[in-house]
Amino acid sequence: MNRNVAVIGAGSMGVAMAILLSKNGNNVAVWSPMNDEISMLKANREHVTRLPGAKIPDSVEFTSDIEIAAKDSEVVVLAVPSQTTRQNCRALSKLISADTIVVTCSKGIEDSSCKLLSEIMQEELPNNSIAVLSGPSHAEEIARDIPTTVVAASDKIQVAQFLQDLFMTPNFRVYTNTDVVGVELGGALKNIIALCAGISDGLGYGDNTKAALMTRGIAEISRLGVAMGGNADTFSGLTGVGDLIVTCTSMHSRNRRAGILIGQGKSVQQALEEVNMVVEGVATTKPAYELAKKLEVSMPITNEAYSILYEGKNPRFAVGDLMTRDKKTEMQ
Amino acid sequence: MNRNVAVIGAGSMGVAMAILLSKNGNNVAVWSPMNDEISMLKANREHVTRLPGAKIPDSVEFTSDIEIAAKDSEVVVLAVPSQTTRQNCRALSKLISADTIVVTCSKGIEDSSCKLLSEIMQEELPNNSIAVLSGPSHAEEIARDIPTTVVAASDKIQVAQFLQDLFMTPNFRVYTNTDVVGVELGGALKNIIALCAGISDGLGYGDNTKAALMTRGIAEISRLGVAMGGNADTFSGLTGVGDLIVTCTSMHSRNRRAGILIGQGKSVQQALEEVNMVVEGVATTKPAYELAKKLEVSMPITNEAYSILYEGKNPRFAVGDLMTRDKKTEMQ
Repeated sequence: MNRNVAVIGAGSMGVAMAILLSKNGNNVAVWSPMNDEISMLKANREHVTRLPGAKIPDSVEFTSDIEIAAKDSEVVVLAVPSQTTRQNCRALSKLISADTIVVTCSKGIEDSSCKLLSEIMQEELPNNSIAVLSGPSHAEEIARDIPTTVVAASDKIQVAQFLQDLFMTPNFRVYTNTDVVGVELGGALKNIIALCAGISDGLGYGDNTKAALMTRGIAEISRLGVAMGGNADTFSGLTGVGDLIVTCTSMHSRNRRAGILIGQGKSVQQALEEVNMVVEGVATTKPAYELAKKLEVSMPITNEAYSILYEGKNPRFAVGDLMTRDKKTEMQ
Repeated sequence: MNRNVAVIGAGSMGVAMAILLSKNGNNVAVWSPMNDEISMLKANREHVTRLPGAKIPDSVEFTSDIEIAAKDSEVVVLAVPSQTTRQNCRALSKLISADTIVVTCSKGIEDSSCKLLSEIMQEELPNNSIAVLSGPSHAEEIARDIPTTVVAASDKIQVAQFLQDLFMTPNFRVYTNTDVVGVELGGALKNIIALCAGISDGLGYGDNTKAALMTRGIAEISRLGVAMGGNADTFSGLTGVGDLIVTCTSMHSRNRRAGILIGQGKSVQQALEEVNMVVEGVATTKPAYELAKKLEVSMPITNEAYSILYEGKNPRFAVGDLMTRDKKTEMQ
């Protein structure tokens, strides 16, 4: 294949996607609103701070003019902070044709509306086919061609299959799924659990503790997901437990790193400044907490994350409160 | 409570269980067949090689005479290499009363018969109540009183609840489950996936690769488990995905460590000698492979593990073969 692809966002995931798609024979243009970042990428053919060492093929174009990037695009890949999804789609709506497929790699829930990114994309781009690419896939490893698996999700299976063909390489294996809600929610909510896993690590707790948090975490994600119309099986898959695992156990994860700093006693603000990248789990905790309340779904870990992030609760008491709930059978 | 408990086996898990149960107010006697080990434990009140730094309460008795350990026991805790379960139960059958509850912390499948440990225990101790204690619980962390969660499983819920009360502390949270087959299989088969996760790490692959292996791993464990009568939900719980996570990501895991050495190019024999502890995953791969064949369950990762361990396949080709299967939807 030889498609015109616009990548919106030039952070680590945007650049990793550009490298992958370019090597697959596509014409790729990457847009960032930051002139400095575009100049740096053009000069170095490498994102020196976010993806050092990953060489970008010469054919990849960089521009800070979104009109140039979007022109004639057959596919648009969104790799932007989740809370900017609406404004970016609104900008694109005037620039792309109805035939353009728009796929997001971002993970989150819109703070103000509690809506999923796919919902926002469809609202702003009502005539376009919308899809989500998600799974255990650190950009740092995709760029180094390390074996990786992801899921392309769209309510139209043909769109998911088109993206499977577009992205797939021997070391980047793409599965399809039509459960967009399940795929998106797994990706978004796992960041909250990763924050908590980091907090547990920062408090000096062990692998046993973290595994318990992750297991109970995927259970509560699945509960909310099913209540919102997702398929329970999706949460056992790559975009559910798979992405949760990679985010909770890898030092590549900014959510986990922010959590570690909070567990070590830093304030939320200090932790975010030190990580100095978008920590999606912080923004996602609030709408997740509100959705759980509205849908009457029990999410004890998300509740504790909310108390730590937004009500100043001591993280050590939060873990204690999780560990000392009533005696239970496992299946409650 | 104040129960007489015999712990059979004085490795890291046996000693961790003895410390936990003694602190909970029980009378604990620990048996090992090795006189040297018993003398060392008596002299140091600490397992200096397996659990350094974990002080053993003075009230815990040590003996190399199984008759002394088992005498008047109300509960027997097995913490022995899984392949010795039958011979140990056979010895106990002459020493304990029918009222004694026997619970195993071991994880495996009997090589010669492809039977689960709970089946072997019931065969050898037909009049006793049998249970399994499993979950994400490295002995090294239990002994340090790090927050840990496990599952007590017995087909009699009263037995599971009795053990919940016996073991539970503020930092050792016990859930109950009546799905013994599911709980046991999760614990046994996860060691195979941990070996493979280690091999992936040893080959230099990344967190993305390992998360994919773990996700597809729990899926194939669940497939075999359901075919053997387990409950699918159990595999999403602490003894399924929870234990898988802790075993695949922690350096405490001997299965993972053996896999890393194999991935780095050592022979299976060299790897086992270097780890110098029982690596349950190696022994479990063969009966799991045979059970999958017999029950016609697709287990691609277990098959590759079998090829590496027993047919000399190059691990790099095994990962390649897993990554380049046909394009699929996620739910196959």
